[in-house]
Amino acid sequence: MRRALQLAANGPAEGVNPRVGCVILSPAGEVLAEGWHRGAGTCHAEVDALAQLAPGGARGATAVVTLEPCNHTGRTGPCALALIDAGVAQVVYAVADPGPHSAGGAERLRTAGVDVTGGLLAAEAQAFLADWLVSARLGRPHVTVKWASSLDGRAAAADGSSQWITGPAARADVHERRSGADAILVGTGTVLADDPALTARAADGTLLAHQPRPVVVGRRPVPAGAAVHGHPLTPWFLTEHDLPTLLGDLRERGIRRVFVEGGPTLASAFVRAGLVDDYLIYLAPTLLGGDRLALGDIGVAGINEQRRLRIGALRHLGDDLLLVAHPALPAAAPGTTPPTDQTATATPAQTS
Amino acid sequence: MRRALQLAANGPAEGVNPRVGCVILSPAGEVLAEGWHRGAGTCHAEVDALAQLAPGGARGATAVVTLEPCNHTGRTGPCALALIDAGVAQVVYAVADPGPHSAGGAERLRTAGVDVTGGLLAAEAQAFLADWLVSARLGRPHVTVKWASSLDGRAAAADGSSQWITGPAARADVHERRSGADAILVGTGTVLADDPALTARAADGTLLAHQPRPVVVGRRPVPAGAAVHGHPLTPWFLTEHDLPTLLGDLRERGIRRVFVEGGPTLASAFVRAGLVDDYLIYLAPTLLGGDRLALGDIGVAGINEQRRLRIGALRHLGDDLLLVAHPALPAAAPGTTPPTDQTATATPAQTS
Repeated sequence: MRRALQLAANGPAEGVNPRVGCVILSPAGEVLAEGWHRGAGTCHAEVDALAQLAPGGARGATAVVTLEPCNHTGRTGPCALALIDAGVAQVVYAVADPGPHSAGGAERLRTAGVDVTGGLLAAEAQAFLADWLVSARLGRPHVTVKWASSLDGRAAAADGSSQWITGPAARADVHERRSGADAILVGTGTVLADDPALTARAADGTLLAHQPRPVVVGRRPVPAGAAVHGHPLTPWFLTEHDLPTLLGDLRERGIRRVFVEGGPTLASAFVRAGLVDDYLIYLAPTLLGGDRLALGDIGVAGINEQRRLRIGALRHLGDDLLLVAHPALPAAAPGTTPPTDQTATATPAQTS
Repeated sequence: MRRALQLAANGPAEGVNPRVGCVILSPAGEVLAEGWHRGAGTCHAEVDALAQLAPGGARGATAVVTLEPCNHTGRTGPCALALIDAGVAQVVYAVADPGPHSAGGAERLRTAGVDVTGGLLAAEAQAFLADWLVSARLGRPHVTVKWASSLDGRAAAADGSSQWITGPAARADVHERRSGADAILVGTGTVLADDPALTARAADGTLLAHQPRPVVVGRRPVPAGAAVHGHPLTPWFLTEHDLPTLLGDLRERGIRRVFVEGGPTLASAFVRAGLVDDYLIYLAPTLLGGDRLALGDIGVAGINEQRRLRIGALRHLGDDLLLVAHPALPAAAPGTTPPTDQTATATPAQTS
């Protein structure tokens, strides 16, 4: 299995499909063939390995594979069937396939009389596949929404000025987290107002090793001279307003983790749609008043529709606070109704 | 001095004047007379003690007094002069008088050749006089402004409903802090919208030992059946809109600690005027969106006018957070310009 994980790492890090490796062993334990998945549209690791053997060469063999063989007919046939057809006697895998369409391979193999064992080096394989697994479980990319505001919820002063709200430590934290995402999303309004570079940078301005893909969402035209055009990755300009469709498109393009930077319109749309997994709320110890709110209409008419959060972590970043929060109920999978529940244990906040 | 502090405690706990005790000792150390201040308009502790002696009876004596003898001619003459006139040879006091108009008594006594020592049992006397000292230093009552909001700065949902935002622990904390104030201020808008009782209550609804005076600020009429009329202390209805004048009026009425409960209009007015010493910001882990903001216009047009705060404490109260904060620069004394400075070390919060 350790060898299979090494083989998996040969595949492309980004893409809609997971990086999987496979080793075919003879009943005596000799390596007969090795394979890995080379990216969308190419054959899966199991098929890649089997293809190296003469017909019948895998009869009675053991397939060691990092992810449960799929049961899904997509651009390639189901791997479970390929293993059965090849006469493999035993399958050992590390991580179960969480995909709603691709899971069930282990059961199909067992039904066909194959001896199946899961969970070998599972922790290692899970860590290796973390982002893909999250996205496969959600059926869409994982979504982080970030904003920075004053303690009274403003992102800028009344005249729009927003320099000098949060401090250097909060800024560094944002860039580090940007670097952990596959794509950074902003609305055209933010591009036109702030002209952001959307790069992930160190304190000295140098680029961090991993850069997120800049994605500009909206229909307003972005000037040719906008700073985002200087990003090391070519920006994508998407006009799709339906967020599940937008996320589906991004997933098809291999994006597993999305970092929504704002502005308020885009952030509010994600909250309203119930499509936020992680909230990063940077609170600066200041008051601004006025109407430049960090979050706008999120579709909450009455208190029964409030979006309760669970605070996962609270960090001091210089003078600022970072709240890492999650929906008290899980965020929505595609096509479901956003959660509108509340906890039943709270009591009035009003003056009484 | 310990005896003088006991005498001081005979005075009324609330009032514009401090509770002061005084013991007159003969050169041999015998107690010649004792006195204390009985409230505004009556003579001060030193004069009260001297009045018990025959003319000349205090010649060469020592006056032990809990607060530096005043140098102020108000409704009574300056105590420093009374002590000099009585021929007192030595004065020992605990706490210096911080009042802008009343301080200077020790210096006046020394100039007249009296032996003056300050600081005896100072910590004890300071704790005993704490609220009066704060108010004397500020030249107005100490002001705490409290609000509860969602993480996006809303006090209620779009339809005005605000039940079930903060939890029981936050609620209990508010009531305990209400109990520590002399007066609880609300705007007429809050009285008309929420009909609050404005009492300080335990979790089971019973009244806490100390109740703040309910003060309703504004010009809109309050219905005769409003819950505030059931408060154990008769509510005061004040129509003064100029906050320094309002606070001066409250101080004259003996109020040293004011707890501003809201709503947003009244809280914003105090912030705008730079008249907040302590902020209590209760943040509930929820998002509401909409236009029911906990804080409205605070007179900040551009980011250079932001009201920077210093966070003094951060507490977890059940699922909620309490931030206890203070102006980064001290709040305004009467007649001064509110602070509009900012820290120079912050960096941009905008998307960049």
